[in-house]
Amino acid sequence: MSEFKVAVVMGSDSDLPIMKDAIQFLEQMGISCQVYISSAHRVPHKTAQIAETAEEKGIEVIISGAGGAAHLPGVIAAFTTIPVIGVPIKTATLNGVDSLYSIVQMPPGIPVATVSINGAKNAGILAAQILALKYPVVQEKLKAFRKEMAEQVAGKDDRLQEIGVDAYLANMK
Amino acid sequence: MSEFKVAVVMGSDSDLPIMKDAIQFLEQMGISCQVYISSAHRVPHKTAQIAETAEEKGIEVIISGAGGAAHLPGVIAAFTTIPVIGVPIKTATLNGVDSLYSIVQMPPGIPVATVSINGAKNAGILAAQILALKYPVVQEKLKAFRKEMAEQVAGKDDRLQEIGVDAYLANMK
Amino acid sequence: MSEFKVAVVMGSDSDLPIMKDAIQFLEQMGISCQVYISSAHRVPHKTAQIAETAEEKGIEVIISGAGGAAHLPGVIAAFTTIPVIGVPIKTATLNGVDSLYSIVQMPPGIPVATVSINGAKNAGILAAQILALKYPVVQEKLKAFRKEMAEQVAGKDDRLQEIGVDAYLANMK
Amino acid sequence: MSEFKVAVVMGSDSDLPIMKDAIQFLEQMGISCQVYISSAHRVPHKTAQIAETAEEKGIEVIISGAGGAAHLPGVIAAFTTIPVIGVPIKTATLNGVDSLYSIVQMPPGIPVATVSINGAKNAGILAAQILALKYPVVQEKLKAFRKEMAEQVAGKDDRLQEIGVDAYLANMK
Amino acid sequence: MSEFKVAVVMGSDSDLPIMKDAIQFLEQMGISCQVYISSAHRVPHKTAQIAETAEEKGIEVIISGAGGAAHLPGVIAAFTTIPVIGVPIKTATLNGVDSLYSIVQMPPGIPVATVSINGAKNAGILAAQILALKYPVVQEKLKAFRKEMAEQVAGKDDRLQEIGVDAYLANMK
Amino acid sequence: MSEFKVAVVMGSDSDLPIMKDAIQFLEQMGISCQVYISSAHRVPHKTAQIAETAEEKGIEVIISGAGGAAHLPGVIAAFTTIPVIGVPIKTATLNGVDSLYSIVQMPPGIPVATVSINGAKNAGILAAQILALKYPVVQEKLKAFRKEMAEQVAGKDDRLQEIGVDAYLANMK
Amino acid sequence: MSEFKVAVVMGSDSDLPIMKDAIQFLEQMGISCQVYISSAHRVPHKTAQIAETAEEKGIEVIISGAGGAAHLPGVIAAFTTIPVIGVPIKTATLNGVDSLYSIVQMPPGIPVATVSINGAKNAGILAAQILALKYPVVQEKLKAFRKEMAEQVAGKDDRLQEIGVDAYLANMK
Amino acid sequence: MSEFKVAVVMGSDSDLPIMKDAIQFLEQMGISCQVYISSAHRVPHKTAQIAETAEEKGIEVIISGAGGAAHLPGVIAAFTTIPVIGVPIKTATLNGVDSLYSIVQMPPGIPVATVSINGAKNAGILAAQILALKYPVVQEKLKAFRKEMAEQVAGKDDRLQEIGVDAYLANMK
Repeated sequence: MSEFKVAVVMGSDSDLPIMKDAIQFLEQMGISCQVYISSAHRVPHKTAQIAETAEEKGIEVIISGAGGAAHLPGVIAAFTTIPVIGVPIKTATLNGVDSLYSIVQMPPGIPVATVSINGAKNAGILAAQILALKYPVVQEKLKAFRKEMAEQVAGKDDRLQEIGVDAYLANMK
Repeated sequence: MSEFKVAVVMGSDSDLPIMKDAIQFLEQMGISCQVYISSAHRVPHKTAQIAETAEEKGIEVIISGAGGAAHLPGVIAAFTTIPVIGVPIKTATLNGVDSLYSIVQMPPGIPVATVSINGAKNAGILAAQILALKYPVVQEKLKAFRKEMAEQVAGKDDRLQEIGVDAYLANMK
Repeated sequence: MSEFKVAVVMGSDSDLPIMKDAIQFLEQMGISCQVYISSAHRVPHKTAQIAETAEEKGIEVIISGAGGAAHLPGVIAAFTTIPVIGVPIKTATLNGVDSLYSIVQMPPGIPVATVSINGAKNAGILAAQILALKYPVVQEKLKAFRKEMAEQVAGKDDRLQEIGVDAYLANMK
Repeated sequence: MSEFKVAVVMGSDSDLPIMKDAIQFLEQMGISCQVYISSAHRVPHKTAQIAETAEEKGIEVIISGAGGAAHLPGVIAAFTTIPVIGVPIKTATLNGVDSLYSIVQMPPGIPVATVSINGAKNAGILAAQILALKYPVVQEKLKAFRKEMAEQVAGKDDRLQEIGVDAYLANMK
Repeated sequence: MSEFKVAVVMGSDSDLPIMKDAIQFLEQMGISCQVYISSAHRVPHKTAQIAETAEEKGIEVIISGAGGAAHLPGVIAAFTTIPVIGVPIKTATLNGVDSLYSIVQMPPGIPVATVSINGAKNAGILAAQILALKYPVVQEKLKAFRKEMAEQVAGKDDRLQEIGVDAYLANMK
Repeated sequence: MSEFKVAVVMGSDSDLPIMKDAIQFLEQMGISCQVYISSAHRVPHKTAQIAETAEEKGIEVIISGAGGAAHLPGVIAAFTTIPVIGVPIKTATLNGVDSLYSIVQMPPGIPVATVSINGAKNAGILAAQILALKYPVVQEKLKAFRKEMAEQVAGKDDRLQEIGVDAYLANMK
Repeated sequence: MSEFKVAVVMGSDSDLPIMKDAIQFLEQMGISCQVYISSAHRVPHKTAQIAETAEEKGIEVIISGAGGAAHLPGVIAAFTTIPVIGVPIKTATLNGVDSLYSIVQMPPGIPVATVSINGAKNAGILAAQILALKYPVVQEKLKAFRKEMAEQVAGKDDRLQEIGVDAYLANMK
Repeated sequence: MSEFKVAVVMGSDSDLPIMKDAIQFLEQMGISCQVYISSAHRVPHKTAQIAETAEEKGIEVIISGAGGAAHLPGVIAAFTTIPVIGVPIKTATLNGVDSLYSIVQMPPGIPVATVSINGAKNAGILAAQILALKYPVVQEKLKAFRKEMAEQVAGKDDRLQEIGVDAYLANMK
C-alpha cells in the first residue's frame, strides 16, 4: 500500500497536539497521512479544494478535527464522498460540547463519523479499520494492536492481583 | 432605496415557516429580500457563490437560518465581509441547542451575529437596525415600529388595569 | 457484490421505525443488510456472537442503534475490528443526549463512528461510503445519490424564485 | 463472614485512585474485596467471565466504576443477577455527565444502582448496607459508622459555636 | 418470606402511575410492598417516622420516587441504614434532569441507589436482586424473569428473521 | 393590613396564565396584588418607574415573571431595595433553563429570590412568608395553609392504605 | 434590633469559606447571625430541630448553603414558615448545576428563595432586604450600601475615562 | 470618519481584559471606541442614559459584554435602535452558558447580535463589518485583515508541509 491513504485536516495549528494522536497511530499501522492546516472559515476555497481533490490523489479517508462552531469536518464532507471522520476538539468555554454538536448533528445526506471529544487516537483507529476492509496488511496490524491492548489491560490486572491495591497505588505516584 | 438589500438564505425549505418572520418584518420596513434555499452541505458551491457575489449585487446584510450542525451562517460568513446574521432553528432532538452552538461559537476572525433560537423576526429587526445606519427612511420606520410595540404593551397593561386579572384571563381563552 | 455486507443491529424492536432509514438507504444502494434485534444487556452472549462471527460471514460494516445507556454499538465494537457505526436513538426523557454520550464517548482503542441522534439514514450513507472504497458500483450509486440530492435542493430554490415566498409557503401546508 | 463478598471492577487502573475509596470503606467494615482491572471494551470476554462466575465464587455485590461511554457496570449487570453498583468517573471533557448517563440510564430489565460522580465511598457504603441485611456484624459496624459521622458533624458545629466563624476559618487554612 | 419486605414511598400521588411499575414487578416476584404517599417537604415528620421505623417493621429495602428538587430518597436515607433506591421522576420543565441530580449526587456517607429517570421497574428489579441474596426463592424467580426476558428478545429476532423488516414494521402499527 | 402589599409584574400577557398562581395564592392569604404587564425591553422607562415608585406606594414585595433572556426581575431589582422574587417562565425552545439562568445568576449586590421554573405559586407563598414576619395575620393564614397541605398529603395516604394501589390508580383516571 | 435575626446553616464546614460572604455582609448591616454546621443527611434530627425552633428564638430569616444533592435548604423550609434563602454551592463535578436544581426546583407549597451559585453575598443582601421591611435601620444601611456600590462603579468608570483603557489594564495586573 | 463610532460598555472592570480584544481590533481598523464601565444593575440610570444618548453622540454600534445573568446588552438594546452586539463573558460556575442564554435569547422586538463566549474580538470585527457598509475605508481595511488572516493560515500550512508534523510540534513548545 502506497503512502497518503489518509488526509488529516485541522483548522488551526493549535489542534495539532491533539490531532497528532491520529497521525501517530496511523503511522504505527504503516499508513502515512497527508496533514493540512486549513480552516473552513479563514481559507474556505483551499478547504474545498483539499476535499474535492482528495479522491483523485488516492486519499481514501479524511480525518478532520475542529473546535467551537466546528464546521470543518462537515464542510469537507460536503465536497467529497470519501468517509470523513470528525474529532470534536475540547474548548475553553464549553468543553467541546459545542464542537461535538457541530460535528455529530449533520443533516440527512452528509454524514460525519464522529468520535469522542479530543478522541483523535480513535479517529486514527477508525480510519485504519475502514482501510483494513481493503488492505489485509492493515487488518493484521489492527488485530495485533487489539491483542496487545488486551494484554496490557490483562497485565495490569495480573500485577494488581500480585501486589495488591495499596502497593499498586503507591507505584502509580 | 432599491430592492434586495438583504439576502435570506436557508438550508432547507422546512426552515421557511420560521424564516418568513424575518422576511415579513423586512417587507414591513420597506426592505425586500432575496430569499434562497441553499444548503452548506448539499449544494456547497452554490452557497459559496451566493455569498461571494452578494456584495456586488448590492446585498448589504445576509440573514441565514439553519438547524442541527448549523454550518450555513458560518460558511456564508467565510465568503464575504458583509454582516451575517444567524438564526438557530429549533431541532426535534436537541431543541436547537445544537443549532445555537454551531452558529454562535464561531472562531476568532469570522463572526456571525446570532439571535435567539427560532428568532427570525429579531434577525429581520437587526438587519433593519444595521441598514438604518445608512438609510434614514429605515431608521424612521424602525422607531415607529418600536413605539408601536411599546404602545401595544402599554395597551395590554391598561386593559388589565381596567378589567382585572380574572376577566383578562377569561378573554385570553 | 453479494448480499449482506452490512449488519444492522438494534437492542429493541422499538428502534426499528428509526433504523429502517439505514436499511432502506442501503437497499437503494444495492446493499442488502442482515438485520438483528439483539440487546447488549438482555442477550449479551448472542450480541457477542453476532459481532464475533460478522467478519467470517462477510459482513464489512456494522450499524447499531440504541437509546438511553446505549451500550450496544460499543459492546459490538469490542468484539470485532470491523467498523461500527452508532446511531443514538432519541429518548423520552433526555431526548437522546444520554444515547449520544453513551455511544460517542468511547475510550481510546475502541471507536464507534457516531452519527446524529436518530440519524439512521446517515448511518446508511456512511456505511455505503465505506463500502464504496472497495466496490466501485457503490461509489457510482453514491455519487448519483449525492447529485440527485443537490438537484432536489436546487429544484426547491428554483421553485421558490419562480413562485415567491408566499405561494411557496401556501403550497407547503 | 468470609472474605470477598464484594468484587470491585474498573476498566482502567487510572480509575483506582477514585475506586480505592470504596475498597477502603469496605475494609473498614470488615469486608474484603476482590479487585479487578477489566475493561468492557478491551477485554470483553474476561469481563463477562468475571460477572458470570461471581455468584459461584460467593460474591454478593459488584461495584464497578467507569468513565466516558461507561459501559462496564451495565455490561457486568447483563451477565449476573447480583446487585451491581455503578460509579460514574469524572471525565476531562464532560466532567462525568457522560459517565453518569451511560450508567444510570439502563433499559428496563437490567438495573445498575448508580451513585454520584466519583462517589466510590458511597458505593462502598451502599454495598455494606446491602450485605448488612444478611450479616448482622456489618449492620452493627454500619450503625457505628453512621453515629461517628453524625458526631463529627456535631463536633464541628460545637467547635464553631465555641470559637466563632473568624477563628474557625483561620484554622481551616 | 412474609409480606412487606419493601416499602415504596412517593411524595405525591401523581407519581403513582410511574411507581406502580416497581410495585407490580415486586408482586410478580412474590414480594408485597408497603406503599406510602409521604412528602419530604409537606409531611417531614411522617416521612422521618416511616424511615426510622422501617427496619423494626421488617422492611429490608426502601424504594422512593420523587421529581424536581427530589429530596425524598435522600431524606429517607438519612434516617435509616436500609438500602434506599431512588427513582427520579420526569418533570414538565427539566425532563427529570433536576430529579436525577437531586437524587444521585448525594454527599459521602449517605448513598441512594439511583436508577434511570422514570425507571421504577428497574427499582423493583434492583430491590428483588438485593432481597435475592437472602431469599433463594426470589433468586429463582429473578433468574426465571431474566431468562424469559432474553427469550422475548430472541423471539422478536426470530420473527424478524422469518418475516423480514417490512412485514415486521407493518405489524407494529 | 391594607391592599397592594405585593406587586406582580410580567413582561407579556402570555405569562399571565402562569403568574395567576401567585396572585390567587396571595388573595387566598388576604393579600391583594397590584398586577402589571410591563416589559424590561419594550417599555423600559415604565418598568423602571414601577420599580422606583413601589416603596412609596406601600409595596413591600415584588414578584416578577419572565421567560427567555429574562431580564425583568433583575432590572426591577436594580431600581429598588424591596425584595424581588423571580419566576422563570418555561420557554418553547430551552424549557426555561434560559429563563432560570437569566434570573438566578444575578451579580453580587442585586439579588433576585428565584423560585422554580413556572413556580408562580411558590413565589406567592414566599411573598406571604416575607410579609408574615411583619403581619401576624398572614403568619396565621400561612400556618393554616401549611397544615391543610399536610393534611391533604396525609389524606391521600390514608385513602391509599384503605383502598390499595390498584383501586387508587383506577380512581385517578 | 437584637442579635440573631438570621440563622446561617450549612451542611459542611467546607462550605464556610463561601458562606462567610453572607455572614460578613449581614454584620456590615448590623445584623448578627447564628451560624450552624448541620447536615440534612448526617444529622437530620438536629437540622429539623434548628428549623423548628428558629421562630421561637426570634430568627426571622434562614440562609442555607449546600452542594450536590443539596437538600438542606428545602429540608429546613419543610420545618418552618420563616423565609429560607438557598445558596447552591459550586461542586467539583457538575459546577453547581446539581446544587442549583436541587435547591430551586422545590415543589409547590414549600419555596426556597434561591440565589446564584456561590452567591452567598447576595443571600446576605436578600436577607437584609427582607428584614428592612420591618427594621428601618436596616433599610437605611441597605440604601447606603446600594449608593456606595453605585459610586464604586461610577468611580471605576471615571478612572477609566481619565487614564484610558491601556493604563487601566496595566494597573489591574 | 471621526472618532467614537462605537461604544463599548461593560458591567464591571473585571470584563476589561476580555473586552479589550474588541477595542484593539477596532483601533486596528482606525475606529476609536468610547469605553464605559456601567452596570445594568448597579447604575441603571447611567446605563439607560448611555444608551439613550448614543445616537445623538454619533455612536453607530454598541458592543456590550456581561457575565452571569448578563442583562447589560439587552437593557442597552431596550433604550436605542442602534445595533447592539453582545459578548457573553465566561463565568466561574457555568462557563458562560448563563451569559450566553441571557444575551442571545432576547424576546421578539429587541435583538442583540450575539457572538461567542468571550468572543470580544469577533464583536469588534462584526462592528467593523457593520460600519464598513457606510465607510469604504473600513471595508478596505477589513478586506486586508481578512486576506492577512488567510495568509497566516496558509503560511502555517506551508511551514507544516515543509518541516513535517514532528518538527512543527517541537517548535510549538
